[in-house]
Amino acid sequence: MEARFLDMNAEFVNPFLNALKNVLGTMANLELKAGKAAMKKDEMARGDVSGVIGMVGPQLKGSFSISFEENLACEIMHKMLGEKPDKLDAEVCDMVGEITNMVTGGAKRELGEKGYDFEMATPIVVSGKNHTISHRSEGPKLIMPFTHIAGKAYIEICFDRAV
Amino acid sequence: MEARFLDMNAEFVNPFLNALKNVLGTMANLELKAGKAAMKKDEMARGDVSGVIGMVGPQLKGSFSISFEENLACEIMHKMLGEKPDKLDAEVCDMVGEITNMVTGGAKRELGEKGYDFEMATPIVVSGKNHTISHRSEGPKLIMPFTHIAGKAYIEICFDRAV
Repeated sequence: MEARFLDMNAEFVNPFLNALKNVLGTMANLELKAGKAAMKKDEMARGDVSGVIGMVGPQLKGSFSISFEENLACEIMHKMLGEKPDKLDAEVCDMVGEITNMVTGGAKRELGEKGYDFEMATPIVVSGKNHTISHRSEGPKLIMPFTHIAGKAYIEICFDRAV
Repeated sequence: MEARFLDMNAEFVNPFLNALKNVLGTMANLELKAGKAAMKKDEMARGDVSGVIGMVGPQLKGSFSISFEENLACEIMHKMLGEKPDKLDAEVCDMVGEITNMVTGGAKRELGEKGYDFEMATPIVVSGKNHTISHRSEGPKLIMPFTHIAGKAYIEICFDRAV
């Protein structure tokens, strides 16, 4: 059972990791160092600003989130625009919404080529010091931490089989 | 343009309000007093614990969120179970995820009867003192505050026409 979950996750998770690398590399010339993925239920994504989005397809439904510490989100903005905001303003939140959309869109294309089709809902941005994100799903749930000199980030992905 | 947005919203929003009333009435024998809905882009839902969920259908895509102040979330738990937690614990977060699912499920049924079909993604629960929720959508976005003697709640709904 556990093995099936892990297999499913490698197949489903890599497209998100590839898309995240492409989006941050292209938009901000910035690379995050991936930490160890966890399937544990007691792990929680944590950050100061997060983008979340729902996904629904004929074979699956799920959700994706990406959370950033404040300073890392500001640093991505800095690398994109040349100027560093000193706090999480509306523009940083817009950027996090855009990153969420682009990463999920990239994963959607790659998963579509593998025969897993889904449509994306509209993204939501959460802002607030040190909040936690927890995906509610019967299916497997993966959380992966990332580090950068400017701060930490987390992605969390979960998929249910569609009913 | 504005009129079309508002009409669309009355049609789309009432099923969520009806479902919220049913869910809280049935689960917790609790009634929230609805405040004035706003379509403004600078309004923000705010709370200590929120449930968010994505929706995708052939004609539309969107997202729904419901945010509670800590004391109100604990009071709903109190009314459901007879015992009041003194802070936002894992059980309260579970309950908020469940309310999110049930309210969206109720709205899905009512909207389905009107010919608007959508599937629900998996819900996500956000926890963190006084965080804000902001839906990112090209389409209309509605935010509605609710009050109760135990605290405030907000729902936020947005829908894009599906591409």
